[in-house]
Amino acid sequence: MSEAKRLAGEKAIEYVEDGMVVGVGTGSTVAFFIDALAGIRHRIAGAVSSSEQSTARLRGHGIEVLELNDTGPLSLYVDGADECDPGKCLIKGGGAALTREKIIAQASERFVCIIDPAKRVDVLGRFPLPVEVVPMARSLVARELVALTGGQPVWRQGTTTDNGNWILDVHNLRITDPVALEAAINQMPGVVSVGLFARRRADIVIVGGEPPLVL
Amino acid sequence: MSEAKRLAGEKAIEYVEDGMVVGVGTGSTVAFFIDALAGIRHRIAGAVSSSEQSTARLRGHGIEVLELNDTGPLSLYVDGADECDPGKCLIKGGGAALTREKIIAQASERFVCIIDPAKRVDVLGRFPLPVEVVPMARSLVARELVALTGGQPVWRQGTTTDNGNWILDVHNLRITDPVALEAAINQMPGVVSVGLFARRRADIVIVGGEPPLVL
Repeated sequence: MSEAKRLAGEKAIEYVEDGMVVGVGTGSTVAFFIDALAGIRHRIAGAVSSSEQSTARLRGHGIEVLELNDTGPLSLYVDGADECDPGKCLIKGGGAALTREKIIAQASERFVCIIDPAKRVDVLGRFPLPVEVVPMARSLVARELVALTGGQPVWRQGTTTDNGNWILDVHNLRITDPVALEAAINQMPGVVSVGLFARRRADIVIVGGEPPLVL
Repeated sequence: MSEAKRLAGEKAIEYVEDGMVVGVGTGSTVAFFIDALAGIRHRIAGAVSSSEQSTARLRGHGIEVLELNDTGPLSLYVDGADECDPGKCLIKGGGAALTREKIIAQASERFVCIIDPAKRVDVLGRFPLPVEVVPMARSLVARELVALTGGQPVWRQGTTTDNGNWILDVHNLRITDPVALEAAINQMPGVVSVGLFARRRADIVIVGGEPPLVL
């Protein structure tokens, strides 16, 4: 699996153009992309990072990390996913970086998603859906998620996001209309973001393998 | 004006029933409500507070402040507003407490809004609309707010919310469909909440005066 992740991460380098500021996601597959990015670091203008974890890895390779508020819109965002459906809708947030990932994806013209084959599913929802919530809204949002989805929200205890918030993971979903579910959860007071990337889904999906599959 | 605020705050005490946990908003009108609540503090079970500011005032009066995650749904929420339209839709957030206020309003069966007469408007939007954003999304959300609304977002520099976020105030709006605008802004990645209370609007509005007007 680690080999598939490496192959996907390295393939994504083909989408990086000279002088770009590259949006960089978070996770084990992205780590391979960052390592590959190090090899062409003199050709890029820098990176915008979605997590403290990726920032540390980028800086460790001597890649400058810039602020999204300073760069303006980006040309390219590269990130992994926990699940990917045939319409390139994603579940993300297993690593708790969903909100910043969603912000950078939205700010980017092209979103290249890098995954290993195990992340491909016909219908999203086997992977628990992460929802980032303001701490005081944990119980309220959990009740509303049960009522809306019929799933079981479980508080990811001990996890605080980079934004100081908490995560509910909603189990036992079968997400047949990701755009509608994302929109409905976004309406709940106390929800900072939901790890469903449907309205702004991936543009290109690279599935790691020999050779990598580009969807 | 201060006299009208006091009259509204005191009138709201009539909605407090014995044994209640009372949801308490934030602001100068709510301060009068808290002061009046002190007089019946032995009749209530406690309060859930929307801000550090209200928490300090409640505790100063010897009123116990409880956590919303522990109390479950509330019967009553009392809060002010920056603007109130004839449909009881509100603009709130001049005091930067909008997200927690929205959470408690949502968790409450009845929302009693207390205002002075100057807050009544035919159409919302003369008061700049506050939008709480994750700091890294400030520029992105500002660009999208311009595109969506035609208004002018201004960063409220120097203000950090109780949740560690920033505020954009959107000027020059004329909000003829508050429910639709609230829903659209809620969809923007990086938005934590918008100070438009339309889907969950006030149930009862008390306009301070002699006598107070109950809408």
